[in-house]
Formats: sequence, C-alpha cells, structure tokens
Amino acid sequence: MHFRCSKENVTIYSVHFSIGTLTHYQIDTFIKMAQKPSIPKGTRDFSPIEVAKRNYIFSTIKTNFEKFGFQPIETPSFENSETLMGKYGEEGDRLIFKILNSGDYLDDLRSNVIDSGKFSVHFFEILEGFGIIIRNNNNFNEFEETLKRFLSIYSGLTFDEKEILSECFTENKNEIFDFFSKYKKHDSFNEVTLQFKRDIFKNVYSKYINSLEALNSKKATSLISEKALRYDLTVPFARYVVQHQNEIEFPFKRYQIQPVWRADRPQKGRFREFYQCDADVVGSNSLWQEVELVQLYDSVFSQLGLKGVTIKINNRKILSGIAEVIGASDKLIDFTVALDKLDKIGEEGVKKEMLEKGIAEEAITKVQPLFSFTGTIAEKIAKLADLLVTSEEGMKGVEELLFICDNINEIGLQTATLDLDVTLARGLNYYTGAIFEVAAPKGVAMGSIGGGGRYDDLTGIFGLKNMSGVGISFGLDRIALVIEELNLFPETVTATSKALFLNFGLEEAKYAMKAIAKLRQAGVKVEMYPDATKIGKQFQHADKRGIPYAILVGEEEIKNNQFGIKDLATGSQQKVSFEELLNQLKENK
Amino acid sequence: MHFRCSKENVTIYSVHFSIGTLTHYQIDTFIKMAQKPSIPKGTRDFSPIEVAKRNYIFSTIKTNFEKFGFQPIETPSFENSETLMGKYGEEGDRLIFKILNSGDYLDDLRSNVIDSGKFSVHFFEILEGFGIIIRNNNNFNEFEETLKRFLSIYSGLTFDEKEILSECFTENKNEIFDFFSKYKKHDSFNEVTLQFKRDIFKNVYSKYINSLEALNSKKATSLISEKALRYDLTVPFARYVVQHQNEIEFPFKRYQIQPVWRADRPQKGRFREFYQCDADVVGSNSLWQEVELVQLYDSVFSQLGLKGVTIKINNRKILSGIAEVIGASDKLIDFTVALDKLDKIGEEGVKKEMLEKGIAEEAITKVQPLFSFTGTIAEKIAKLADLLVTSEEGMKGVEELLFICDNINEIGLQTATLDLDVTLARGLNYYTGAIFEVAAPKGVAMGSIGGGGRYDDLTGIFGLKNMSGVGISFGLDRIALVIEELNLFPETVTATSKALFLNFGLEEAKYAMKAIAKLRQAGVKVEMYPDATKIGKQFQHADKRGIPYAILVGEEEIKNNQFGIKDLATGSQQKVSFEELLNQLKENK
Repeated sequence: MHFRCSKENVTIYSVHFSIGTLTHYQIDTFIKMAQKPSIPKGTRDFSPIEVAKRNYIFSTIKTNFEKFGFQPIETPSFENSETLMGKYGEEGDRLIFKILNSGDYLDDLRSNVIDSGKFSVHFFEILEGFGIIIRNNNNFNEFEETLKRFLSIYSGLTFDEKEILSECFTENKNEIFDFFSKYKKHDSFNEVTLQFKRDIFKNVYSKYINSLEALNSKKATSLISEKALRYDLTVPFARYVVQHQNEIEFPFKRYQIQPVWRADRPQKGRFREFYQCDADVVGSNSLWQEVELVQLYDSVFSQLGLKGVTIKINNRKILSGIAEVIGASDKLIDFTVALDKLDKIGEEGVKKEMLEKGIAEEAITKVQPLFSFTGTIAEKIAKLADLLVTSEEGMKGVEELLFICDNINEIGLQTATLDLDVTLARGLNYYTGAIFEVAAPKGVAMGSIGGGGRYDDLTGIFGLKNMSGVGISFGLDRIALVIEELNLFPETVTATSKALFLNFGLEEAKYAMKAIAKLRQAGVKVEMYPDATKIGKQFQHADKRGIPYAILVGEEEIKNNQFGIKDLATGSQQKVSFEELLNQLKENK
Repeated sequence: MHFRCSKENVTIYSVHFSIGTLTHYQIDTFIKMAQKPSIPKGTRDFSPIEVAKRNYIFSTIKTNFEKFGFQPIETPSFENSETLMGKYGEEGDRLIFKILNSGDYLDDLRSNVIDSGKFSVHFFEILEGFGIIIRNNNNFNEFEETLKRFLSIYSGLTFDEKEILSECFTENKNEIFDFFSKYKKHDSFNEVTLQFKRDIFKNVYSKYINSLEALNSKKATSLISEKALRYDLTVPFARYVVQHQNEIEFPFKRYQIQPVWRADRPQKGRFREFYQCDADVVGSNSLWQEVELVQLYDSVFSQLGLKGVTIKINNRKILSGIAEVIGASDKLIDFTVALDKLDKIGEEGVKKEMLEKGIAEEAITKVQPLFSFTGTIAEKIAKLADLLVTSEEGMKGVEELLFICDNINEIGLQTATLDLDVTLARGLNYYTGAIFEVAAPKGVAMGSIGGGGRYDDLTGIFGLKNMSGVGISFGLDRIALVIEELNLFPETVTATSKALFLNFGLEEAKYAMKAIAKLRQAGVKVEMYPDATKIGKQFQHADKRGIPYAILVGEEEIKNNQFGIKDLATGSQQKVSFEELLNQLKENK
C-alpha cells in the first residue's frame, strides 16, 4: 500500500504544482509526516463510544417508527442535480454539494469558452476594411456611410461582433474623423491608427475576457456537474414516491434514517454532514395521522427517558386566518415573531414592535385575545374559534386542531405535553395544515429537537398531483446533546467487551481461545489480549478499554479446567468452571 | 414547497439555457410531468423489504464483530482530497468522486486562464514596431538585425511572447522579405502585411487557446475541488488512527460499516454506491488475530445460515518464496494466474501457459509439487516447507500458515472450511502476511464474498510508522444475492406490521386507537387504516402489505369490549379480549 502510495503521490504533487519532480514529493512527504492528517471542516469522526450512543438513539427511534407501522426505505446519497436544484430556494441551491463529473468534464466548459473567443481572427479584415474604405471615400460622411454598410454586410462577423465594432466606431468617432482627415493629408496609415486599432482590439479582447467572466460558477456547474449530494430526505422521498408509484401501496408510511449534506458555514452544533430521521405518510388526508405523529414523538422521547418534552402544535390555516383578520398576509411573519416575544418584552413591547412593523392599530385590537392566550388547549382553541369566526380557512384550522387535540387528550400521552402555539410558523412556505415542533424538557437550553407538519401536494414537484403528505423529523445531534447533558444514556450503552482474557503464553492462549470460541457462540462479547506481554500492561489495557472483567488462565487453572475471573471494579477474584464463567458473563451481556 | 419550487425552477432553466423565461419553464414542466424522475446510474433505491433484508445481514455482521471485541467507528463521507488521492493507484484516482468547492469556485480557474491571454494587448506595438523598423532600415539584413534587437529589448513583452514572435518571424521570413521589398517599392503598408499580421495574430490567439487546452480536468480539479467521497474504508481508517493516535488504546480492534463511492462503469452487481463492512486490528503482530478473523468469518456465515463457505488462506511470504524459487518475482502474477487454471486446463496446459509467459523450464520443474497440491492443509504446508526450504522469507510464511491452521484445527470451525490456496494473490501490492478470501458455498455461481489480509505499516502513508494491521471485509451485496438465491432469509425478516385495525368510522377508530396505543407500548407493531373507506379496500391494503392479521371493531365489539381478529392467511376469525389480542399478536412479534 505504502509503495503504491509513494509512487502515486508524485502524481498528486504534479497536479498541485503542475510539475512532478521527486524533490517536491520528498519535501512534501516530510511536511506530511510533520503534520497530522485532518478531516474537512464541518465533518466529524465518531469514536466507538460516540457511535454506540448514537446507535442507541437510532435504534430507539427505529423501533418506534416500526411499532407505528412505518417502513424503512433508503435512497442514494447523490441524486441527479435537477432532482434537487430549485427545491430549497436560492440559498438552498447554494448549499447543495455538487459532485464533479468524472472523466474529462472540462471539455464542454473549454469549448464553451473557446467558441466565444473565436471571432477575433476576423479582426484584421475589419482593420484593413477600414483602410480600404477610407481610401475610396472623399469625405467623412461618405466614409461613415460606407463603413456602416460594410459592417452590416461583412459576412465574417456575427451579430455580436458587428455590435462591438459599431459601438467602438461610435465611441471613437472623433478619433476616426481625425484619422480620416490625417490619412487624406499624408499617407501613413499606421501611426495615426495605432491608438484606434488598439481601442478596437481592446474591445475585441475584452469581449473575450467577458466571455470568461460571464462563465460564472453557477452556469459552469451545469456544465461540469450533474449529480449532487442529498440535502434533505423529503425531496428524495417525493422523488421515490413518484418514481415507484406503481409498486407502492398507498397510503405509504415510510421512515428514512440517513445522512444529509449541506455546505453551511460550520458552527457549534451545525455540521456539513448530519443524520436526519424522518417519518412521513403520503396518500391520505386523515387527521388520525397527525394524532399518531404526536403519539410517536411521545413514545420515542419517553423511551429515551427524555421526560417532559413539549410537543407544540399549530396549523397553517390558523395562521392564514390570523393573517386575514389582521388584514395583512405579508405581515404574518412579523406578527408571529413579535407575538412570540410576549413572555420576554410583555404585551406593550409586542404591540410596539407590531406597530413598528406596520401592522395597523385596529388589527392588533382585533387579535387582542392572543395577548392573553393561556389556559388548556381546549380553552385556547375556543378563543381562536371566536377570533377567526369570520375566516373560513381559519375555522377549518380550528376544526383540525380540535380533532387532533381531543383525541390525544382521550388517548393520553406517556410523558410529553401537547401545547398549542399560534406563534409556531416553521415551514410556512410548504406546510398547509398541521405544524409541529418539539421543545426539549424545561431547563435544558436547546432549540427544537424535532419538527414537522402536513404538506398537501408533496409530490407535485415531480408531476404526481394530489398526494397529501404529513411527517415529522427527529434532530439526532441535538437529542444526543440533551441526553448527554441530562446524563440519560444507559450504562449498558457501551461498545466494549465484557471480559478480557489475559495472555500468559502459547499454551494458556490456546486454552483461552477454546473457551472464548464457546463464549462467543453463546453470544458473550469477549476477547484475548493478542500478545503475551507484561501482565501489568494487559490489565492496563482492560482498564483503559473499560472492560469490566479480566480472565486469568495459568497452568493451575488449565490443570483444574478452571478460569480465574477478576472484577476490575472491586478487585475481587475467584476461580470458576466454564459454566460459572459463562453465566457470570452472560448477565446483562 | 411546490410554490417555492416553481419559483426556483425558473432559475434552474436559466442556468441550463442561460435564459430564464417562464415559457421555458412551462414547457419543461410539461416534459417533467411526462417523464418520471430517475436516480443516477449505478445507484439504487431500497424498498422496505430490501432494507429489512440488508439490515438483517448488517446486524448479524455487527453482532459478531462485537462478540469478537471489535468496536465501531464512523468517518465522514467525504475526506480532504489529499487524504484519498494517490492511495489507490492512477485508476483509483480516476474513480474517486470529487466534490465541487462551494461558493464561486471558478475564480482561480478563470484568472488562471485570463492571465495566460493577457499579453495579447501589446500586440500592436509590435506590428507598428515592424513598420517603423522597416522604414528606418535600408536592406533586409539590417532590418532583420534591428527587428531581433527590437524583440529582445522591447519591454512590453514577456519571454514567452518574444519566443512566439521570433518563431513567427522565422516561419514567415520569406513573406517578410517580400513585404520588406514591396514596402520599399510602393507605399502601402497595409495590404501586403494583411496575411503576415494575421499569421502573427493566429500565433498569439492560438497561444491563448492552448492555455485553455493545457487546462486539463486533472489540473483543474485541484483548483475547483478539495474534497472527495470515501473510496474505501481502509484509507479513512488509517487516517483516523493517525489523527487520533493519542486517544486510541492499542491494539485497536475497530469495525466500520459505511457506504463507499466509486465512479466505476456500472454493470451487473457493480454499483457506484455500496456498503463495505470491515473489521481490522491495528497495533499488534500477533498471529492470534489471523486465527480470530478466520473464526469471525465462520461465525458470521454460520449465523447467516450460509453453510459450507470456503475460507481460502495464503501468505504473501509464501508467494515471495515461490517467486524466489522460480527466480522471477516479476512473473509471480503470471505464475499464480496460470497455476489457478490447473483444474480447468490440466498440468500440461498450465505449464504451456507458464512457458509462454516466459517462466523458465527448470523453474517450473522446481515447483513441480504445486501441480499435485492436494491433501489436508497440514500435508500442503509440508509440501511447501520442502519446496521453499531455500527461501528464508518463504519459510517464515510456512511458519505463519502453520500457526494459524493448527490452531483453527484445534479450536474448530462451525460450518466453514479453511483451505490453503497458493494461487490466492489478491492485494499483492500492500498485503505483507496472511491473505484471505471467502468463496460462496459450492454450487452458487458467485465471486468472492469476502477478503482481507495483513498489511504491515498500514498508517505509514500518514506518517505513523510501524503499525501493523490485519483485517477482513464482507461483500454485503454479494452475500445478499447468495442468501436470496439459497432462500435463506428468515420469514421474520419483514418490515411490515403484525396487524391492521380496519377503520369503520369515528367512534370505532377512537376505540381502536386506544387499544393500538397500548399494543404499541407493549412493543407490538400495529396500525390502523387511516380513512373510513370501503372495508374491501382496507382488506386489500392489509393483503398487499402482507400484514398477517386484520382487527375488526364494530358497535358490538365496543359494547362487549372485544376485538374481532381475522387471520388473513387462513381466513379464520374470532372475537377476543384485549389481553388475548395482545398475547396473540405478541407471538414472534
């Protein structure tokens, strides 16, 4: 491996410095050896314990997804660019990681640039043309006429090129007049036209440069890249549903737990590669699904021991209703953002901000009830019903909320609380019904740890109309942080072995390995220290690895067909038979 | 979502056609709606049942990895290009998927091209210079002299530029002489020089074009891409070990199950995105690890029910020994390839091929024993010992084989067979000790379903010397195909629910949902049909989904607090209490 590598590295450096001398390679190898390798910013390595903790969360989510009848699908890490581009807004398009076409992807790019420069070779005919025209015309107007005609009929030029030269002609008209007169006086075509020619040439040349500058990255990307890394799981899911619509039995309850990639500026808690855990139902408008998704959140967080999360619910139709009432749908966001600050800046502060944002005085008076929006969900909904009575869509929202909340109330939740939050306005651009967001238990400083909602016409973007979808998502990284902070990871979450057999030498090792084989067949995680080194070092290894038991096998144990087992926490040690050993290690294996 | 999308699509098409008219967008939307979306070639969507089957294999492998004391790590999907490039040979470099830098990645590329064109703006001084020089010199030699001097001192030119013009001067010498004489005769500088000027210009212009052509994709890639998708798990592992060497407790037994990406030409059974499942130990030379890896293969394939796989073993040192004996290390591959055909083309055929490949007659005679290389492993090893007695390295290989095979023999395997195969020469470029390969059970037409070996100095490429590594890999896709072919997937491997509660209306649904909540808390996978549609349609849904039981709840059931449960396989139906329902559904849940 190393051999191939060194051979090849020369190529790498020949790429970087566009020369491939061994010296470069040698120098660079020294540098390399001096500096540790690293990973791209915004990405992470996960150590064994980190993987174990994440897998604990994944499998809890997975188990609950399946209990609720959701089925797993997986889609490719990269999609065709046209599948992703334009689905996440301008900003999203920028943050999508594009994959370079393999092979000589520059061909298109190059010809694209070269073509745009091609015309320059006709340049001389023009210059000479000028000279000829001047000689054959007696006054400037005549000359001007002929020149214009010449430019208009000259076949060596494209439309663009004629434009440039006419412009150039107009801009330099005085100079040309000078030059025309001078030429008619004395005979040197050259000196006088030097400046003139250079101007024209600069025009032509700059046209060339521009053709390169016009080639912005966005345009070029479509020439050299046709695949892009998944940006979320919703668009690939929509694509999946449309592509496989004939194999899918609807309503389709799918879950998907896969990484997504975003070229975001990395910062604390925001990464360029992270997992999304989505559960969606597509193909039914039934509100029972909203009910189930609330239960699903409750079920997952309860099983994770995350007691007391708040599942906030709102409805797009409620928000539309409010917008109607305040008579300014364009002010809706300003309105919710301001209202959300009620606890912080108080009623007066909120109203002040709303006025500043240009929301009318009487509009604010109309929605007065929202400033004392307390009580049970039922009471809140009642208030909304009064407030939105004039808005048909608003009342539809009230009805939907009522169904979901009543049924959750009847069925009950394990540890979570459902709460109606009219300031919840996430995904305003695509959610059309229910909107969900989950807040970590009080006292934990952490943004939302989950969210979702209903979007009618999920698959419309790919040509399959009237497919309503509703889904929720779990924020793995944040959930992990919360569980860590609250110290809720079970002790059993570990990636280490139950026991380490110490290695006292060949014979002992043979004896140990036979026992180990049987223990493993019984499902126990055990291993032997591979080298017969100092026993102290081996104990240290077990200790550093956090392995609870050390198994000691010496001549005597072999003779009596026994095993010495040492509890590394307590230090207590005893000799046991294989069966005793098996039973002891099997406990919570 | 759809709203944003349509808004954005205009942008996409403005990218493609470099114009963004709504018409384009409308037309294209029609096309889009006509044609289903697709995924990039070489990638796959996995349906629920496919995911379930793959997860069954993953978790079996994972469980066994952990039983053997291996710990999971995960590395980012993309690495810095310099981490990957040059580690897999020229071919590998080509097959690595590169990720386009985000932002305006073309800046470097563009300036790189523009600079190389810059000089053209001095072009006119030269031409005019020629004119002046001609006028001030009386014969051609004088002219030639001055011109040379002029070119050598002219400050507006770079070295390259002077070169071009001198070349151009020499090439056009005759023409220039003509032109010189003509000019001295009559006075028109222009017409005569037209051709000449154009030649020079073409030179300059072509220099420009060349600067673009010189810009090959390989060079450009280093300018516009600095990240690349993981090509395998070994190099990222080596990078991980070096980067985290201070946190890692050695010897380090790690496993890693993650996808890798290769820009291979897709073909049956070869994909551009596929999973690798690797287990490696780094930081110990103990041969017990080779012993354990053989056991690990046996353990995984036995648990998957894949009985009768053959674990082929060889040793790089044996191959070196053979090379020594046949006195031609460069012929080693030819030798093993030929020898491998023994069964097919017989001893004579093999010898014939070896001679054709330029292996000496007496070399072949020396290794005669390999043509009757049968019997138990012990017998085979004995033969090798005789054969390689003169080769120190060869004998070291014999010794290693002996240790591994003796101990495997003593400890025993569950269902696999260990076999010594001296023609096994995979990874010849980096393996330094044991070489493994697993063949599917006889009768299944399938290449190797696993492989591995020992490579000393695994981490040397990243500057950490003397770290010996040994590891094996499982070929998930092929294993899945074999299990499918042999029909070995357990019936319990399914992603579907245990029962579907039919939806007879609001009241029945409420009653059902309460039972469902309790069943799920007991860990049973159940769901309710979301809409109160025709019952026939609901039965059909359960049927198509492969859900074994339908639960019917009508007025009467509610009154008696019962549930109607129908076995959709047998059609038998009964009324049961919740407890009975729970117990019945819990069986092999």
